[in-house]
Amino acid sequence: MSNSFGSRYRFTIFGQSHAPAIGVTVEGLPSGFAPDMDALGAFLARRAPGHGKYATARKEADAPEFISGLVDGHTCGAPVTAIIRNTDARSADYDQLRRVPRPGHADYTAFVKYGPARDVAGGGQFSGRLTAPLCVAGGLALQLLAQEGISVRARVASIGGETEPAAGEKLLEEVKAAGDSVGGVIECVAEGVPAGLGEPMFGGMENRIAQAVFAIPAVKGVEFGAGFQVGHMRGSENNDPFYFDEAGPVRTRTNHHGGILGGITSGMPIVFRAAFKPTPSIGMEQDSVDLFSHENVKLTVQGRHDPCIVLRAVPCVEAAAAAAIYDALLESRC
Amino acid sequence: MSNSFGSRYRFTIFGQSHAPAIGVTVEGLPSGFAPDMDALGAFLARRAPGHGKYATARKEADAPEFISGLVDGHTCGAPVTAIIRNTDARSADYDQLRRVPRPGHADYTAFVKYGPARDVAGGGQFSGRLTAPLCVAGGLALQLLAQEGISVRARVASIGGETEPAAGEKLLEEVKAAGDSVGGVIECVAEGVPAGLGEPMFGGMENRIAQAVFAIPAVKGVEFGAGFQVGHMRGSENNDPFYFDEAGPVRTRTNHHGGILGGITSGMPIVFRAAFKPTPSIGMEQDSVDLFSHENVKLTVQGRHDPCIVLRAVPCVEAAAAAAIYDALLESRC
Amino acid sequence: MSNSFGSRYRFTIFGQSHAPAIGVTVEGLPSGFAPDMDALGAFLARRAPGHGKYATARKEADAPEFISGLVDGHTCGAPVTAIIRNTDARSADYDQLRRVPRPGHADYTAFVKYGPARDVAGGGQFSGRLTAPLCVAGGLALQLLAQEGISVRARVASIGGETEPAAGEKLLEEVKAAGDSVGGVIECVAEGVPAGLGEPMFGGMENRIAQAVFAIPAVKGVEFGAGFQVGHMRGSENNDPFYFDEAGPVRTRTNHHGGILGGITSGMPIVFRAAFKPTPSIGMEQDSVDLFSHENVKLTVQGRHDPCIVLRAVPCVEAAAAAAIYDALLESRC
Amino acid sequence: MSNSFGSRYRFTIFGQSHAPAIGVTVEGLPSGFAPDMDALGAFLARRAPGHGKYATARKEADAPEFISGLVDGHTCGAPVTAIIRNTDARSADYDQLRRVPRPGHADYTAFVKYGPARDVAGGGQFSGRLTAPLCVAGGLALQLLAQEGISVRARVASIGGETEPAAGEKLLEEVKAAGDSVGGVIECVAEGVPAGLGEPMFGGMENRIAQAVFAIPAVKGVEFGAGFQVGHMRGSENNDPFYFDEAGPVRTRTNHHGGILGGITSGMPIVFRAAFKPTPSIGMEQDSVDLFSHENVKLTVQGRHDPCIVLRAVPCVEAAAAAAIYDALLESRC
Repeated sequence: MSNSFGSRYRFTIFGQSHAPAIGVTVEGLPSGFAPDMDALGAFLARRAPGHGKYATARKEADAPEFISGLVDGHTCGAPVTAIIRNTDARSADYDQLRRVPRPGHADYTAFVKYGPARDVAGGGQFSGRLTAPLCVAGGLALQLLAQEGISVRARVASIGGETEPAAGEKLLEEVKAAGDSVGGVIECVAEGVPAGLGEPMFGGMENRIAQAVFAIPAVKGVEFGAGFQVGHMRGSENNDPFYFDEAGPVRTRTNHHGGILGGITSGMPIVFRAAFKPTPSIGMEQDSVDLFSHENVKLTVQGRHDPCIVLRAVPCVEAAAAAAIYDALLESRC
Repeated sequence: MSNSFGSRYRFTIFGQSHAPAIGVTVEGLPSGFAPDMDALGAFLARRAPGHGKYATARKEADAPEFISGLVDGHTCGAPVTAIIRNTDARSADYDQLRRVPRPGHADYTAFVKYGPARDVAGGGQFSGRLTAPLCVAGGLALQLLAQEGISVRARVASIGGETEPAAGEKLLEEVKAAGDSVGGVIECVAEGVPAGLGEPMFGGMENRIAQAVFAIPAVKGVEFGAGFQVGHMRGSENNDPFYFDEAGPVRTRTNHHGGILGGITSGMPIVFRAAFKPTPSIGMEQDSVDLFSHENVKLTVQGRHDPCIVLRAVPCVEAAAAAAIYDALLESRC
Repeated sequence: MSNSFGSRYRFTIFGQSHAPAIGVTVEGLPSGFAPDMDALGAFLARRAPGHGKYATARKEADAPEFISGLVDGHTCGAPVTAIIRNTDARSADYDQLRRVPRPGHADYTAFVKYGPARDVAGGGQFSGRLTAPLCVAGGLALQLLAQEGISVRARVASIGGETEPAAGEKLLEEVKAAGDSVGGVIECVAEGVPAGLGEPMFGGMENRIAQAVFAIPAVKGVEFGAGFQVGHMRGSENNDPFYFDEAGPVRTRTNHHGGILGGITSGMPIVFRAAFKPTPSIGMEQDSVDLFSHENVKLTVQGRHDPCIVLRAVPCVEAAAAAAIYDALLESRC
Repeated sequence: MSNSFGSRYRFTIFGQSHAPAIGVTVEGLPSGFAPDMDALGAFLARRAPGHGKYATARKEADAPEFISGLVDGHTCGAPVTAIIRNTDARSADYDQLRRVPRPGHADYTAFVKYGPARDVAGGGQFSGRLTAPLCVAGGLALQLLAQEGISVRARVASIGGETEPAAGEKLLEEVKAAGDSVGGVIECVAEGVPAGLGEPMFGGMENRIAQAVFAIPAVKGVEFGAGFQVGHMRGSENNDPFYFDEAGPVRTRTNHHGGILGGITSGMPIVFRAAFKPTPSIGMEQDSVDLFSHENVKLTVQGRHDPCIVLRAVPCVEAAAAAAIYDALLESRC
């Protein structure tokens, strides 16, 4: 089902932006593992609302409560469930959203799929807030991967096309002042991944990571290694020559393959990038429709929103990648 | 498992390049459906070896034999299995490949995963030849989608960066003469897809299509709608305004979202692109390793190979997309 | 994964007997459905501790809190998560159980599987208490099935071999006085189930119902229709003759097949029975082992326990069957 | 999907009784394994038609052809597909079966599910013939289990209630002479299974074995250990006392739990029984319906049939159990 990911490290996310709570159930954690709750809290803080000066003003504690699966701070083999209470009150002013979908949001497609009973408040189950439980599941995977010497780190590669942080910050100021928003690209690198993870065809590491990363709202593209640039390259240029490292393992001199060949990890770093669209919620008037009266109408989205979600999405990309890699690591031991 | 795809329209691919046969078992076909075998044959011919002057010289009939699931040419509710015999003889000269992996191929990662027992002949289970059964499963889905008024068509968007066919052809000549290869990009458009297909999060249409398309060998990136370009755009530019068409349904004036919002189809055409790396098999000498002697060695790949697989991959992309869309269509009726 | 059941109506159970909470996430509920919370509460009360005079003395409110998936009492298309807080304090006197497994319980196998970190308190994740979230998921399915004219009702068929309630009650008195326990059999009948649900082979209705029912602790056998009696019967006796009912549908004059032929429902009532072993927790001294000192030891289980769980298990059997049948009903509409 | 079983050792069965072929694709076999084809052939021969004097007269070679996944007789990591050609000609005299379903068979439920396009010849996909590919998948699992010191052996426990072979044979003579059939019970024991296989709840070994065994046509009940007898027992009698064997491992003095506690193996032999209904095809006139004319009619089934399938079903039960146990064994290594 669509709210679950993974095979051996499997988690199921639940909740909506303004439900009593959001949360996640994680199956497949090894028994006897003591999560570092401080590290997990710090990881979650990187995506929390109110993090950084360009983030939304919504403030929430976002501290997960672990209601099952832990005994004296250690996993016991049972599924681990963590919930995060939604402390912001459900607003009464979502009435307009029931009728008028916001361009670029899932309001309209949710209406088609779930009908008028769908939860419109704060984007319902489509809210970026649901990446918090993703970060719980991925944050636990990150800690387990670290025990195996595997790191997964993402960074902002560009904002609005600007690859220099200073230029990006300047652009954000402009965009925010204009009531507009801007997209960007995040790059993620996983190091220390052993060769041999993943499967051919539909179970390849690219397939799995893409399946996880496209679950983050606003992602419209995922590319590995040289990515779309391979379309411009020649084989003699793109092929990564093999050699024996002095230390022993086979390595490649370049890494256009992004650490994955035939869906299976090569032992070189996994490298991928995800493209994020600009936050659809902008302060400008936009064209939309009234789903009840069947008229074309004008919409001005209320409230304060991030001019760019890319900054907060960095840990989400790490979480998605970590979950996919740890799942494949467990599978490889069968 | 990694050789299976889909939930309600589910298929399992088997075989290796030089096994006695390759094939596919398809579950979820409606009972009483009479596949148009001529149309399926024509579809398969588009990806067959020997198709077009730049394709590999390997010749095979590639006509699928349906060994189960059909009675008098109609599906009967049982799984449909089609096999394609491999008529080219297994070459004895794959000995070098057991020792020396080809750069850019899965030879090395297959060795790590499956050990020396892996099938190296013709790339084994990683061969592009396995896209033939994918095209059988996808070709049947295309016919069923057509009955619902849904079309899925792909085309070469660029070869080696050249978007003009004439320039692309010229580049292919050069590359072939040099014993080199070149990559490209394929764009796919699905029209007539009803709004409401797909699910939130991991079951989104982007996730599903990406999972299917990354199963085609050589794909290194998948992007939807405006794709990576969204990283350069502002919200006011990227947001697609809604309006009521005269005919009734909600539409958007632009389609930067590529027909998918929140993982769910909007009723606008699904648009995506896949980046293909250059054929790794090139005629030039390359650096590699001897996995048995642990020495760095030189490798010159023998045989004749496509200088560019993008041309033959077009129906494969259609097949992958069609399977994912038809699967979601069936799910949407539950 | 092992805590999840179903394909289109899919739920995931979490929690342990003495964790902060137990609960369930249900995916696949139709949007706009308003669960009858009073009816659900009454259903849950039938399995609650303290229900009936032979049940355990543990008292708990067991009222589920719905933390996601409902808006103003209606499903919105998002997964529905309900949690039940464990209000009984975690006992400190489980130390003996860490060392000495109770015969007939999962204490020893949990130790082998999860190691010393397993949760021994109250049976941990193996506790019968985990049937409460099963009853939430199944109770919702029962309500949805009722909307389709389908009922699922179970009853105690026998206790300790006694099929007469009076004799069963007398036996329970004896057994309780002796500090012993006794097993029994529950029979379940689903009426109004349309013909055509289920699939051949591994997806048959027998397979699915058995998979669900064996998840209830203490079940050691499941049989359909004439069940094990078929081993004594002749074909001429066991075959159920078809006939056309005046009202129209095909029916059978007898129902030895229990409403399922070839894994698919026939439109006759689904009938099955589940055998429950006696509660393993008894007041008598038993032989066991000390897992740490590797010595054979004597064990006397403390606390008060049901002399017979069969009475409380009746709604659990209904819940398991309802979930399996509703899942198949949704699938049949694809 | 319904034709697939397993998680890490996963197979998909295809074919119908009179399709060109039946077969199976097995994923999850270790790379480098050389199946003993003679042993597999001998295993398949035990269920083949024409085996034993009470079996159907249909003669077929039933030798599987391995069309993928093997190189020089060894698995290479790719899925293994084996097909068995159906050499008996498709009979033209199945016309009556299109209209008049045989009591006790899946003819009617298949009609409801798949409509008139269903394959009626020889029972189509519901034929017992489909247990041949089950025996291929299970037979390979048996060989892999044997390498781990695990054996799975089934035997006829009773025929028509007769537990003595001589009495059973006499009964079979009578039944055959009368044109009737008779059911029976098969008991299966798996020895050498390590403790710790299986999972709680829906992934328990009882759940998995039941899911596999109910896929064998005619099975109407499955029970583990003391099975339905537990309903008659007291806890003090049913509980299996633990003790330390001299050799080291924990064992139980009795095995009423059938080697499974809490869904997880205890290290004691897995013991279960399956009840088989009498062959529905009998030589006597029976009541049925004409699905086209909507009339009640008389039916006399033509052809020669086994008076008792229990004899031939013994290897099928071993195959189903072996597949479930080997799958759990692989999972336990994650």
